[in-house]
Amino acid sequence: MSFSIRKATSSDMDGVLELIKELALFEKEPDAVKITAQTLRDYGLGENPLFTCFVAIHQDKVVGISLVYYRFSTWAGKSLHLEDLIVSKEYRGKGIGLALYNQVMLYAYQNKVKRVEWVVLDWNKRAIDFYEKSGVTFLTDWHLVQMDENQLATYVKKC
Amino acid sequence: MSFSIRKATSSDMDGVLELIKELALFEKEPDAVKITAQTLRDYGLGENPLFTCFVAIHQDKVVGISLVYYRFSTWAGKSLHLEDLIVSKEYRGKGIGLALYNQVMLYAYQNKVKRVEWVVLDWNKRAIDFYEKSGVTFLTDWHLVQMDENQLATYVKKC
Repeated sequence: MSFSIRKATSSDMDGVLELIKELALFEKEPDAVKITAQTLRDYGLGENPLFTCFVAIHQDKVVGISLVYYRFSTWAGKSLHLEDLIVSKEYRGKGIGLALYNQVMLYAYQNKVKRVEWVVLDWNKRAIDFYEKSGVTFLTDWHLVQMDENQLATYVKKC
Repeated sequence: MSFSIRKATSSDMDGVLELIKELALFEKEPDAVKITAQTLRDYGLGENPLFTCFVAIHQDKVVGISLVYYRFSTWAGKSLHLEDLIVSKEYRGKGIGLALYNQVMLYAYQNKVKRVEWVVLDWNKRAIDFYEKSGVTFLTDWHLVQMDENQLATYVKKC
């Protein structure tokens, strides 16, 4: 199956959002996606975007994405965060995920980051196996902590 | 004890680095800090910095820091990551950590982020209790994954 990988453009963002929703469903959080395709356009394109999105295209359709942005580690320095790596269900097993992953690592290497980092659900064995084969380190003794928009508003008003 | 909180300037960065090293020691990773004060100046100041650092100052000395940067959540949108919240050991218990934390949350609120997020070591009960009181959500079913500079170079050469 032929596919090509390039940076996402404005007209890709509806397809990108569909894949984000597909992943949320897989991660058992079907109602978690609060953004729109316009949010992706607003923050992912133009000057000083908040993220860079790569798309895998097959017959003019977005069938996979990888979405990354820079972070700063006070131990390592400039790093790249892999926020999402998604291949639409019916297009899996065709090398698209690997190609998107390789694109991310090449981008990281070319931009001289000191580390690439991301998170994975502890029950997502298929993803863990995939990452393990590529030579990564897993850190299992950290909790993620989140204060969402409503919690933040409540907290700030008490400060 | 009197202290003030403001954004870090170039001349603060040596003091900021000292605190980063103090935290690494506390987190049982004394050799983990690979950056220098110049790294902090290069990426934390000027136009389009990779992070924003707040410092707590007591008698012209940096006694605490909070260091943040924007991220992008494909579920929530623009978010703020709290990379480090550190108070030097001998200055703890004086409200400095809370003031730095409040500064971060105020900054997040004013900049209209949809979420503030960070990570905490699962054995750091004091920090977990502190965060819990402020009304956050803990996610315990994720692993962190890292590919460091050497692993990245090895991987890219095989692609």
